[in-house]
Amino acid sequence: MFVTFEGIEGTGKSTQIGLLDAWLREQGRATEITREPGGSRLGRELRRILLSMESSDLTGQAELFLYLADRAQHVATVIRPALLAGHDVLSDRFADSTVVYQGYGRGLDPKTLHGLNEVAVDGLWPDLTILLDIEPEEGLRRALARNIAEGTHASEGRFEAEHMEFHARVREGYLTWAALHPERFRVVDASASPEVVHARVRELVAAALDEKEQPGLRM
Amino acid sequence: MFVTFEGIEGTGKSTQIGLLDAWLREQGRATEITREPGGSRLGRELRRILLSMESSDLTGQAELFLYLADRAQHVATVIRPALLAGHDVLSDRFADSTVVYQGYGRGLDPKTLHGLNEVAVDGLWPDLTILLDIEPEEGLRRALARNIAEGTHASEGRFEAEHMEFHARVREGYLTWAALHPERFRVVDASASPEVVHARVRELVAAALDEKEQPGLRM
Repeated sequence: MFVTFEGIEGTGKSTQIGLLDAWLREQGRATEITREPGGSRLGRELRRILLSMESSDLTGQAELFLYLADRAQHVATVIRPALLAGHDVLSDRFADSTVVYQGYGRGLDPKTLHGLNEVAVDGLWPDLTILLDIEPEEGLRRALARNIAEGTHASEGRFEAEHMEFHARVREGYLTWAALHPERFRVVDASASPEVVHARVRELVAAALDEKEQPGLRM
Repeated sequence: MFVTFEGIEGTGKSTQIGLLDAWLREQGRATEITREPGGSRLGRELRRILLSMESSDLTGQAELFLYLADRAQHVATVIRPALLAGHDVLSDRFADSTVVYQGYGRGLDPKTLHGLNEVAVDGLWPDLTILLDIEPEEGLRRALARNIAEGTHASEGRFEAEHMEFHARVREGYLTWAALHPERFRVVDASASPEVVHARVRELVAAALDEKEQPGLRM
């Protein structure tokens, strides 16, 4: 099964992926954890380019296509082979991040972006996408706490107060996009404790596994 | 004015661009010559990546998106600024190469590829696209002669006999695509001598310049 986690910064995606991974392994399943951007060798090369070029020099469109190149390579060389080997794949962000951040966040057309994703994912959409939803203010609080715990200065964090309006747009965009794709999106309130959120995630994953492995029951 | 040159290998694109450039400068116009892929700094970085990765490891989709990233950056940082500065821009290949090589050549949907190009070029289409048309067999003969002149072994050339079928598909694809975009495509028989071909190119460019600079006459 292919499960992706989406949501703004500070929602606890990596924590939840770790907990879900441990649970799936307890069930005797083989798993693989990955992420975007940077989940493929090409992605890591591109990441180096993105960092080496002054960001002001790179256009939004060029950046978008680099993310899509990373995604196409990620699907073909990491995700699809893992699924074919019978592993569950858990990805920290995937195609929906492009639609929501570049579309709802930065004003490109979500439909056009979805069309670009169709080319990049080449038919491989997640079986289940878990949207961890939280108020942007709470996400900021958590991201700041993480920065302090990691010893990084707040201003180096990815989620700064001055961008609150942007993150609020992204959060709303995620909810809108999830509502448009009810067949695979599940929204989880991420304001509770990690254990409570994990219990809900586990329920959703178990339901999706049942449905995937006994599709006949749906009839 | 923005002029692009298209055509299979061995049609004499770079020769014709050089001759047209010289003629335009004689007319007192400022010009800039560029090319795809690799016309932007990002493009040169990507080229290094493409070469550094074993080609078998890179998927067709990922490669496509890298070309599109190069194009978006090329338009934004090279072509558009040159045009805004009042220069004529002559490009050796541009967006049509993607549609023709990946579409007609490799079987992706030309319409989808055109949609991807729309995002990459961000509204900046050529005023004139000159398709240098030649029989693939004649292109091969010329490309081989160039290889010999440059001291490269024939097997290192970009246009090998074993790929003749592919180049025949690409040549037909160019003619089909040109017929679908008569407003900017002009097909030139490239089997004649460089001087004869140049005279025809000059005529077409002069006509396009007249039309661009005196648009009122069209009414």
